[in-house]
Amino acid sequence: MDKVRIGSVGLGRLGLQHAENIANRVMNAELTALCDVDEAKLNETADKLGVKYRFTDFDEMAGCEELDAICIVSPSFLHTAQIEKALSCGKHVFSEKPLGTTVDECKQAEKAVEAYPDQVFMLGFMRRFDESYMYAHQKVVNGDIGKPVMFRSYSQDPEKFIDGAIAFAGHSGGQFLDMAVHDIDLARWFLGTEPKTVYAIGGCYAHEEFAQYNDGDNVSCLMKFDNDEMVFLFAGRTAPHGYNVETEIIGTKGILRIASVPYKNLVEVLDTNGVRRECSENFLERFESSYINEMQEFVYCILEERKPEVTVYDGTRVSEIAYTCKEAFETGELLRF
Amino acid sequence: MDKVRIGSVGLGRLGLQHAENIANRVMNAELTALCDVDEAKLNETADKLGVKYRFTDFDEMAGCEELDAICIVSPSFLHTAQIEKALSCGKHVFSEKPLGTTVDECKQAEKAVEAYPDQVFMLGFMRRFDESYMYAHQKVVNGDIGKPVMFRSYSQDPEKFIDGAIAFAGHSGGQFLDMAVHDIDLARWFLGTEPKTVYAIGGCYAHEEFAQYNDGDNVSCLMKFDNDEMVFLFAGRTAPHGYNVETEIIGTKGILRIASVPYKNLVEVLDTNGVRRECSENFLERFESSYINEMQEFVYCILEERKPEVTVYDGTRVSEIAYTCKEAFETGELLRF
Amino acid sequence: MDKVRIGSVGLGRLGLQHAENIANRVMNAELTALCDVDEAKLNETADKLGVKYRFTDFDEMAGCEELDAICIVSPSFLHTAQIEKALSCGKHVFSEKPLGTTVDECKQAEKAVEAYPDQVFMLGFMRRFDESYMYAHQKVVNGDIGKPVMFRSYSQDPEKFIDGAIAFAGHSGGQFLDMAVHDIDLARWFLGTEPKTVYAIGGCYAHEEFAQYNDGDNVSCLMKFDNDEMVFLFAGRTAPHGYNVETEIIGTKGILRIASVPYKNLVEVLDTNGVRRECSENFLERFESSYINEMQEFVYCILEERKPEVTVYDGTRVSEIAYTCKEAFETGELLRF
Amino acid sequence: MDKVRIGSVGLGRLGLQHAENIANRVMNAELTALCDVDEAKLNETADKLGVKYRFTDFDEMAGCEELDAICIVSPSFLHTAQIEKALSCGKHVFSEKPLGTTVDECKQAEKAVEAYPDQVFMLGFMRRFDESYMYAHQKVVNGDIGKPVMFRSYSQDPEKFIDGAIAFAGHSGGQFLDMAVHDIDLARWFLGTEPKTVYAIGGCYAHEEFAQYNDGDNVSCLMKFDNDEMVFLFAGRTAPHGYNVETEIIGTKGILRIASVPYKNLVEVLDTNGVRRECSENFLERFESSYINEMQEFVYCILEERKPEVTVYDGTRVSEIAYTCKEAFETGELLRF
Repeated sequence: MDKVRIGSVGLGRLGLQHAENIANRVMNAELTALCDVDEAKLNETADKLGVKYRFTDFDEMAGCEELDAICIVSPSFLHTAQIEKALSCGKHVFSEKPLGTTVDECKQAEKAVEAYPDQVFMLGFMRRFDESYMYAHQKVVNGDIGKPVMFRSYSQDPEKFIDGAIAFAGHSGGQFLDMAVHDIDLARWFLGTEPKTVYAIGGCYAHEEFAQYNDGDNVSCLMKFDNDEMVFLFAGRTAPHGYNVETEIIGTKGILRIASVPYKNLVEVLDTNGVRRECSENFLERFESSYINEMQEFVYCILEERKPEVTVYDGTRVSEIAYTCKEAFETGELLRF
Repeated sequence: MDKVRIGSVGLGRLGLQHAENIANRVMNAELTALCDVDEAKLNETADKLGVKYRFTDFDEMAGCEELDAICIVSPSFLHTAQIEKALSCGKHVFSEKPLGTTVDECKQAEKAVEAYPDQVFMLGFMRRFDESYMYAHQKVVNGDIGKPVMFRSYSQDPEKFIDGAIAFAGHSGGQFLDMAVHDIDLARWFLGTEPKTVYAIGGCYAHEEFAQYNDGDNVSCLMKFDNDEMVFLFAGRTAPHGYNVETEIIGTKGILRIASVPYKNLVEVLDTNGVRRECSENFLERFESSYINEMQEFVYCILEERKPEVTVYDGTRVSEIAYTCKEAFETGELLRF
Repeated sequence: MDKVRIGSVGLGRLGLQHAENIANRVMNAELTALCDVDEAKLNETADKLGVKYRFTDFDEMAGCEELDAICIVSPSFLHTAQIEKALSCGKHVFSEKPLGTTVDECKQAEKAVEAYPDQVFMLGFMRRFDESYMYAHQKVVNGDIGKPVMFRSYSQDPEKFIDGAIAFAGHSGGQFLDMAVHDIDLARWFLGTEPKTVYAIGGCYAHEEFAQYNDGDNVSCLMKFDNDEMVFLFAGRTAPHGYNVETEIIGTKGILRIASVPYKNLVEVLDTNGVRRECSENFLERFESSYINEMQEFVYCILEERKPEVTVYDGTRVSEIAYTCKEAFETGELLRF
Repeated sequence: MDKVRIGSVGLGRLGLQHAENIANRVMNAELTALCDVDEAKLNETADKLGVKYRFTDFDEMAGCEELDAICIVSPSFLHTAQIEKALSCGKHVFSEKPLGTTVDECKQAEKAVEAYPDQVFMLGFMRRFDESYMYAHQKVVNGDIGKPVMFRSYSQDPEKFIDGAIAFAGHSGGQFLDMAVHDIDLARWFLGTEPKTVYAIGGCYAHEEFAQYNDGDNVSCLMKFDNDEMVFLFAGRTAPHGYNVETEIIGTKGILRIASVPYKNLVEVLDTNGVRRECSENFLERFESSYINEMQEFVYCILEERKPEVTVYDGTRVSEIAYTCKEAFETGELLRF
């Protein structure tokens, strides 16, 4: 095999991006099939990208003999079942996070992955494939910053997307599950350890609508990890300046900051506002290359018959931690893992 | 009166700076007396600065008729008694933090201040007099950033001063009392509210010596304030790059960051290390003008017969909060105020 | 036609990059043939990229019936003849700069392009396809910075590549022709006007080897353009920090700076050197996406039967200007265009 | 003598600043007298600063027995005569730039200074006393950047002061004499060499009013210095963002940039404009401490009976160079020194 034939399900914003990447920007990959319940969008996209097979039923696509792998970008509540189905049809599987909408579902996904040990399974923690995060991670692994002391990570969505966030709030699982999962994954990846305690706070500072779901528009938590590393996470929906994902790792010998200001590009503007840089607008802009890189890694894992660094267990663990953060936030108590 | 005659006690690093500022950089002020137990240093400094009266006994200086005000920069354990003495001698008093080494001492100082309502008392929270903090504070007061959501503040001392910090560790009261008090003061000043809960963690990541005092070389805490504002403080002794005091205030309409990198000056160096900026080395360098500004304000308060914005109660409150942080750190429990 | 079949000549560093881009990162393109005199490298690359046809003779490739377009990344002295040959064989042509090694050759290329008006010809001024330059250009076109006053642009190669630069110095045409051509192109693109005068200086500050070619290791020139715009260009071979391409456009209403520090990525390092950012190492790293974008535009021009914004006349004009800069440098005189 | 008694002439913006600095911020100095033709302003300022003697006639002040030194901040056309007068009265002299309004006047001032070799004479090139410029200069002197290759310096005034600049344009001598003199001084100070050639251009991009004086609202020049160092200077009156004085020194081993963006303070604002820093508004804000430092140096020179690094010959040389730049601009020719 020198080309991986992929069928992709889900044509929302990120689904479209994955489809285009597979079709045009990922080497040794072919976008062979697309699946979505919206037939108009399905045909339009398939035409544009020159895709051979079109499905409105996921199970049919999973069974298609001309596919080597399935890419899952459907709504979260469908992930676990689609992972199981695709694996059982002999396909390699790339799934967007989360693994499932409950920890039980995650464990179910684990079992499915364990049942098909020869198939590649990969979860979409795309930040691990961002050039800057990779560069920083390598420095930490090299010991350049000494022993990790503190890990701080922010995920902030621009205020201008607040209507969508409110509309989706009942299904998102809340800020810890919907936004902070990426920061939780990064913390575990950079530190190589697990949390022992968590205290979480926050509130509805601008948008009361989140309160009905026991959630806030901005939340944070402080966690103690295995080697006493301090982990502070912040997730917010009201960023005035743009899409802001930043991370700081303080070590005993050095400190790394990744994207401490979310510059859109290399242009600096000097005008009556002073000296300024415009900012990234959304995750697709900020992580454009990460989405390509992760899919490329998925394809190479299949071709080279090796397993991705991110495992199904990472998916479960991150979900467990996010649920505990959520519980800590809802109860106001200090929780221990 | 058009000139305030000041006697200053304590000739450590900061004491020397205050003495020089009063002598040369504060308008309408005169450094009329100096006091220190080290007679050699006393005479050397008094000679250099042209100071008239010299004392090795504080009470004698407090009683000197030719002084209008006393500046206290002695070791912390002497503060309360010296405040009381100076006030009882009819002097206006400027004291470095802390008010006292226990909350009881702070309350004692409060009583002394209340007993002499016509005398000015001011506590040295110098960060409030830094141009950048003042500028940011005004923006918050103006409502430019909307409703405060999160307040984050770091106090980091350079690793190269670690020997002194270890030697002093038994007397410092620990990182929360010695370092984080300034951040606690800033949080209350910027938010205008008080903490309700605190969770504190940290450890000895590089220097086990702090463990014997139930302290860490790096610590942090997450607090919830009255209006649910999130407050995250970090204090560390092992900064590789320099003296780092930075603060971020996230609001619903804007975000302010003060000194997010502690640039030494306006010089940028491009060499084999990349593009870099050298950093502030210590608090005297970073807050050089703040120390002048606060003393100027003290002098103007006396001359204009008004009271400083920082009150004795702020001193007590900050100490109470720092002690609670310390207790939270030592017990590992979530504490409520 | 829904796919452009391209044959590419030249497998140096940039040639390899173009080949990989066409093979894997450019939509609606196929790398159908490769040509190089080094047969081993030719076969290795063709194998790796799955290329069907291999040629050691350019004329044979130009005549190949299964190709729609030719990409020229051969040594500069071959450009003009290969452009002519490929056009005469009915192929669309993308050529790296320069158009030719003399202005006469450039004019010869112009004639060839004019003789085949239905074929697409595009010159590789890749900076015009960099996201940041495009973003800044749009702002200038929109009038956001008012009337252009001054245009400043630097091209600096890292000192660590100096051996190669010295070895190549006899054939490069000198800093103005080899490096500043991109800045000259940018100046004309941003300002929309032409130079009227030029004064050029410089010298051998670190490497006397350039003197024998009447060149310097660092040079600069000041030009006056049609509307009195000031244009200052600097080209150097001894940058200590990395590959530095930066541009500033000062207007009456605003100022734009593009890449005023050549950050490698979004990671900031705080260590004993202060606060620093590592820098881009070379043009392939800095302009990675520009090379893809320009080739994509070439392909779309062919498919949509339209002409690129960059014309063959731009190529000639830039060469003429660079030669005049070179003459100004060599004579030390103020020259008028 | 342990205190230098100074009389200061001229109470414009900068005159007021010098007066306040001498009165309150310069050690071992006393503001003993003030002189201005505007009697109301004279009395108001003298009252505020507690100044003993007041003069409306400069010669009277120069003759006052109770003064050790004279500070000249009067209009430029008075400088030379006042320097001569004050020196002849046995006073030490600090004068703002320029030494005179013609090169002949400068030579006249030279002679006066030579005639009184025991008196201190100092010219107000305040940038040499800015902490960042001093820090950078020390690095250059240390050889940290290797051999100097290029020196670039900008002086930009904010557009909002344009009315004053236009009103003053007939008397200012033009941008090279009024603004670029500081950059010329810096170039000579950093490089330690002299210019050999100059080419100067510019124009009226926004304000035609400057044309009648053969001047532009923005101008620049490229000079070749003794060791072939390239020197590029830019001076403009239409900066949209604030008062911008920046300098870059490119060496063979390192590059230094001083104030490449004119940050007002350490506050970073993240709002709907992106990430931005507000800028310095004027020279008094940017160079606040430089004005204090230079006066302090003047006072110490007197007390320690030594001569300042800046000599009267520097003043003449800078004026000569600025006049040549002006001539180059007016004639459009390449001039040689």
